[in-house]
Amino acid sequence: MNYPKTILNLIECFKKLPGIGEKTAERLALATLNMDGEIIELFSNSLTNIQSKIKKCPRCGSLTEDDLCQICQDKTRDTTTLCVVEECKNVILFEKIGSYKGLYHVLGGLISPLDGINPEDIHIDKLIDRIKKENIKEVILAIKPSIEGETTALYISKMLENTDVKITKIAHGIPMGADIDYIDPLTLEMAIMDRTTIS
Amino acid sequence: MNYPKTILNLIECFKKLPGIGEKTAERLALATLNMDGEIIELFSNSLTNIQSKIKKCPRCGSLTEDDLCQICQDKTRDTTTLCVVEECKNVILFEKIGSYKGLYHVLGGLISPLDGINPEDIHIDKLIDRIKKENIKEVILAIKPSIEGETTALYISKMLENTDVKITKIAHGIPMGADIDYIDPLTLEMAIMDRTTIS
Repeated sequence: MNYPKTILNLIECFKKLPGIGEKTAERLALATLNMDGEIIELFSNSLTNIQSKIKKCPRCGSLTEDDLCQICQDKTRDTTTLCVVEECKNVILFEKIGSYKGLYHVLGGLISPLDGINPEDIHIDKLIDRIKKENIKEVILAIKPSIEGETTALYISKMLENTDVKITKIAHGIPMGADIDYIDPLTLEMAIMDRTTIS
Repeated sequence: MNYPKTILNLIECFKKLPGIGEKTAERLALATLNMDGEIIELFSNSLTNIQSKIKKCPRCGSLTEDDLCQICQDKTRDTTTLCVVEECKNVILFEKIGSYKGLYHVLGGLISPLDGINPEDIHIDKLIDRIKKENIKEVILAIKPSIEGETTALYISKMLENTDVKITKIAHGIPMGADIDYIDPLTLEMAIMDRTTIS
């Protein structure tokens, strides 16, 4: 004997999620048996709606349920500054800080020829077009400092070489509260290179 | 800005599952965006059905979609042997081995006065009744060797003291393939106590 069909189906569905193996899927599926009825209903409905309701903002690529995302609709944002990020969730991360008031652009990936991701796959031409058309003054590259990230940043900079757009990148250095003893040499090197003047 | 409502709802639902925190819930909810449409539909439907379709077998306490579970319905099982386990998932574990052909009884918990779980909370009287009525010849206690497990096992043995029922418990000892050097002293002690005769 095995679990009844409905539980087996649920285990299979949980297993399709990233990082969820057989044992965890089983545990999660069994846990739904004891969940609040209202939560189960919300869970089921949200799943039904997730793919039909959520789309990408045609302007910046963020996730939205409307024609334009909340940020692109917001008239109070600084429309001359553009923060370029890799993924939708990075936008939410910056928004949680609350101090950045410009716009965003989600690439949806980074240039990685080894994985077959070229500049056209992440629509960099659309980004460059947008920067020129919307009269952006500063582009902040908030891309992770990996080989792919550096390649992407370099490529975008090259494409904007002959424009007046100011290109910046977020600072790499010692995280707040971290002990310098435990920082890797590359980060330390970046921290020295990107040092700022105190007085 | 934060995620659109549907994603936020889904994150909240994932967070209600055991061992799923804020970050994991976010990752799982975003992953559903890229899941296969059919899987999403199955996922949503299974969730809707899980609580209405799945019930406990009134005889043994296993999970089932029918009036009686598959094992209780199976006429080929040995109805004189009863394996007593703590949880429904233990039944599936034993069934996966495939060599046990008797019936099961799921307690749904273990006696733990500190947590307010007394013999009546796990319906031990119902178990004793069943053993007597169904003319069970052997009761195998397959309960974990914790304080709660030992208490429960002792309690069940006491309740069956004046009957002809043979009471056994599964062997505790060195797991197959394990190095004796790394086994805790208590397990070693049990392994020596429960030694079997080779010749």
